[in-house]
Amino acid sequence: MDELALRVVGWVESELRERADAPRQGDEGAPDAWVVFDGSVRDALADVAAGDEVILVSWFDRADRDVQKVHPRGDQARPPTGVFSTRSPDRPNPLGLHRVTVLAVDGLRVRVSNLEALDGTPIVDVKPVLGDVADR
Amino acid sequence: MDELALRVVGWVESELRERADAPRQGDEGAPDAWVVFDGSVRDALADVAAGDEVILVSWFDRADRDVQKVHPRGDQARPPTGVFSTRSPDRPNPLGLHRVTVLAVDGLRVRVSNLEALDGTPIVDVKPVLGDVADR
Repeated sequence: MDELALRVVGWVESELRERADAPRQGDEGAPDAWVVFDGSVRDALADVAAGDEVILVSWFDRADRDVQKVHPRGDQARPPTGVFSTRSPDRPNPLGLHRVTVLAVDGLRVRVSNLEALDGTPIVDVKPVLGDVADR
Repeated sequence: MDELALRVVGWVESELRERADAPRQGDEGAPDAWVVFDGSVRDALADVAAGDEVILVSWFDRADRDVQKVHPRGDQARPPTGVFSTRSPDRPNPLGLHRVTVLAVDGLRVRVSNLEALDGTPIVDVKPVLGDVADR
């Protein structure tokens, strides 16, 4: 299988330390968190501002990339489901999409709402929210 | 900067051959297209079905990864904007998010609506649409 090299552009700083602590979706009680960007992407970050709704793309570095089916929401009573139909972090490429609101920007540090990613999780991209992009 | 290895799990088959032909967003006239998945992710794909709304995550392999600011929508009259505030394919990690409807599934071949990715573009993940995931 072909491989592509993804560059880490930032990291999450969060009170969430373990997978067992993480809510299954960001709207189920995830805490506010910081994303600390690498100085090499300062220009790419220049127009991100408080109030923006963005999608953070993360890399679930503690995921199992060999898992292809999961019981949805960890419920053993539900049949195993292909991970492309779920939000399981365990998947061939453990990319996470997190819709968050930017609360504050302090240089390379960005405070965001309701982020369900663990402390230390790499960030690989930031995008405007889907459906709010007609003018970009 | 740290690097992560992304695996290509599928490829786009589309009539769109050149960047100049591609609409800027999928809802501005992009054609229906096929995504052909690698046999190694057959189980991950097993529950994707016609009618599903999904987000395809692509890798814009013809993008310029050194670009950090762009004129939005290529309009030179608009000030250069950091790419994390735009959908420009030129960005440090040229990931694309494409919200599409699955029209048909034929084994490893999946037909989708309105895909603004060029023929041959690698696909790296498939997810249920954001906001429609509470039960997954």
